[in-house]
Amino acid sequence: MSDWKDYLAQNQERFDSELLNFLRIPSISALPEHAKDVQQAAEWVADRLRKAGIENVEIMPTGGHPVVYGDWLHAEDKPTILIYGHFDVQPVDPLHLWTNPPFEPTVDGDRIYARGATDDKGNMFVPILAVEAVLKSQGSLPVNLKFCFEGQEEIGSPELSVFLPKHKERFSADLAVSADAGQFSETEPEIMVGLRGICGIQIDVKGAKSDLHSGMVGGTIQNPLHALVQLLNTMHDQHGRITVDGFYDEVVELSDEERAAIARVPFDEEVYLDDLGLEQTFGEPGYTTRERAWIRPTLEINGIWGGFQGDGIKTVLPNEAHAKITCRLVPNQNPAHIVELLQAHVRANSPRGVTVSTTVLGTRGKPYLVPADHPGNIAVSDVLRKLYGMEPYQVRSGGSVPITGIFMDALNLPTVALGFGLNDENIHAPNEFYRWSSFHKGQQAYCELLNRLGETEGVA
Amino acid sequence: MSDWKDYLAQNQERFDSELLNFLRIPSISALPEHAKDVQQAAEWVADRLRKAGIENVEIMPTGGHPVVYGDWLHAEDKPTILIYGHFDVQPVDPLHLWTNPPFEPTVDGDRIYARGATDDKGNMFVPILAVEAVLKSQGSLPVNLKFCFEGQEEIGSPELSVFLPKHKERFSADLAVSADAGQFSETEPEIMVGLRGICGIQIDVKGAKSDLHSGMVGGTIQNPLHALVQLLNTMHDQHGRITVDGFYDEVVELSDEERAAIARVPFDEEVYLDDLGLEQTFGEPGYTTRERAWIRPTLEINGIWGGFQGDGIKTVLPNEAHAKITCRLVPNQNPAHIVELLQAHVRANSPRGVTVSTTVLGTRGKPYLVPADHPGNIAVSDVLRKLYGMEPYQVRSGGSVPITGIFMDALNLPTVALGFGLNDENIHAPNEFYRWSSFHKGQQAYCELLNRLGETEGVA
Repeated sequence: MSDWKDYLAQNQERFDSELLNFLRIPSISALPEHAKDVQQAAEWVADRLRKAGIENVEIMPTGGHPVVYGDWLHAEDKPTILIYGHFDVQPVDPLHLWTNPPFEPTVDGDRIYARGATDDKGNMFVPILAVEAVLKSQGSLPVNLKFCFEGQEEIGSPELSVFLPKHKERFSADLAVSADAGQFSETEPEIMVGLRGICGIQIDVKGAKSDLHSGMVGGTIQNPLHALVQLLNTMHDQHGRITVDGFYDEVVELSDEERAAIARVPFDEEVYLDDLGLEQTFGEPGYTTRERAWIRPTLEINGIWGGFQGDGIKTVLPNEAHAKITCRLVPNQNPAHIVELLQAHVRANSPRGVTVSTTVLGTRGKPYLVPADHPGNIAVSDVLRKLYGMEPYQVRSGGSVPITGIFMDALNLPTVALGFGLNDENIHAPNEFYRWSSFHKGQQAYCELLNRLGETEGVA
Repeated sequence: MSDWKDYLAQNQERFDSELLNFLRIPSISALPEHAKDVQQAAEWVADRLRKAGIENVEIMPTGGHPVVYGDWLHAEDKPTILIYGHFDVQPVDPLHLWTNPPFEPTVDGDRIYARGATDDKGNMFVPILAVEAVLKSQGSLPVNLKFCFEGQEEIGSPELSVFLPKHKERFSADLAVSADAGQFSETEPEIMVGLRGICGIQIDVKGAKSDLHSGMVGGTIQNPLHALVQLLNTMHDQHGRITVDGFYDEVVELSDEERAAIARVPFDEEVYLDDLGLEQTFGEPGYTTRERAWIRPTLEINGIWGGFQGDGIKTVLPNEAHAKITCRLVPNQNPAHIVELLQAHVRANSPRGVTVSTTVLGTRGKPYLVPADHPGNIAVSDVLRKLYGMEPYQVRSGGSVPITGIFMDALNLPTVALGFGLNDENIHAPNEFYRWSSFHKGQQAYCELLNRLGETEGVA
């Protein structure tokens, strides 16, 4: 038995209780009133890194929410690994659908319910503990390590594309390992070979100078809600295909081999629908459900509002209407270019009688691809094969981790994923949870990965 | 000089201060949490009627907000007039656009700013004061009087179509005079010959069993916001004509003479747009702006909501979307039938992949018409001609006073209007106000009208 296994076993109770403390910090990056909580989470992470034996720990200002840096650089002639995760979380609305308060972690058997439990606090805490276990039990680490933990992932890491190039040397490494990731199932591992990118805009429609009486003026002027509905309806056809000019121009169509690799990953559409509580899928014709989620771009309205939302009725003709839209992007779509196409579409399709404006939302992440035969993915695969007793599936994700694109752009750094989230854990939704079993398995996996990466001179 | 003029002059200061007290009651009928305030307003009105010398005053339960009744029935062989108004008010949102708190009436020169100042508390208080002045100064009234003041006008008087037939005898009269009405301008009078009706529904779209991550499932299932947008967009063409099957079938097209009468009423489109802060009108082709407001039906979205409405971004694929819709109706559209057409349209046009349901909102008022040569309108015209020195314009309103249709259906009672609101007074909007000059002129007009109606044996 390796020493790190003993260390993990002897300290697990303390680690578990520390996770619950971490989850109590309401570090919602999207809401300005929670900025101090994001800062507090950064301080918690920095303290915890120091306790694990990490050196040069620093909370670095970015212009937005901070980044926590730390390193251990005493493994001569060994590669340098940058470990990534995020300590910010999603907003909690609709709050009334939570069974327990989102920032009072509630344990129920194997499950820990809390906002951020799986995305990403539980998963990002795992490598810190693994590093502590290896360092304290072996006396040193088999690789050089750097940490980049951020507090703005849930708003699209808006500052990092400026921040990281400014600190290129500090963050330079051979390979990034992202702890913002998942398992295929509790018993099946995966490696991540592709992520979708993201970008978004807000649309604001303005009519008269104040809200009006729907009887007095109704029928004589453009209703901003009608204008918004008409505009939004120009963005898809009835089958769900996006009708923004040029939107698909840069999309790489996959080869038959690549589509076959996707088809080999188990997927039960019936279970998928049952989990969602739906009777049918819906989406762009010509692609499977998995392909729609993994290799096809989307344009989703995330929010819409205007006029009266209370009980009963208010016969108002409102003077404002709003919508938030994000697009998931695939290789080789460029977020900045897609935002321009969206804005051009809004300009070209704005109904008359109102003023329509757009704001770029702080989210631009490039789509990302790391082949399965990349040395980093090979190392991760070796660890997972040993731990689960089977070859990991090569998956993609419909989600976005903007940082992967930024690491590549700013630091020429490829990213592989090693995380332990599972699909049913309600990320971005009420009653988010994480599993103790994932938390514990993850610590072992990271210990094994550190040792496995130490066996090679270079991984990039 | 008539005695009532002296009485008004001597008591005006008191009346003015009473109006401010009335405006302090936040009697918002649409919001359940304000039900007790609507009740308090009813008690205020009942007390005030008693002080004016009205008999048999009673707060009558309706199943919803109450009705205040009172009478004075000692004018033998004279007609019985039912005076109508409402003491409930609209909600106040968006609150941040009010310069002063909506229920702390603020006087600025001739203006009294408060929610309900002109719609309808200021206007409904006027006939009470006129009756007091005539009764106290002349010792008796020239006509028999009944009062019907309600607390549910702003939610479409949902209970009254059941309540009034139950109390047919109590409310029977020869003519109703509605104080929920306006002047053409400060120097020009009008009589009201037509009102639009109203009905409405709420549309609720339901998708998955919880909010979802727009990356994980985006592109694979129907987004309820997309479905709602698509559905709502089927209800109008691009020019603003309503495309709900059968919607226009019962609409009476006006004769050339009737359209000419409308064209004779002064209307300055430039001033209209300037007041609204808009550059262009918008609406059904083939009709003038005034015709679109007065004699054409509408379908307006009054509110829409779903998903994330906060600052920044939340990459959610929400599982609910909602909209509130009301229609303004013209002769001979039937509110219940139009609601059925709306529901059928929703059923026929619901996108697949979501569940769409509708709720009938508590608003159904028939469109209404009282010819200019009706004896009631002739009496009102006589009073206005004397007071303003010109023939009143024959106008219609795009708004709805559901009670007029209910009075006709339940009591076979025609309604004429005598009120003193003006178009710029921000009804249903922030910074609603009323004018002291209207309040004082109105009291004179009602004193004159009581005496004028006393000169005739029958007005119906």
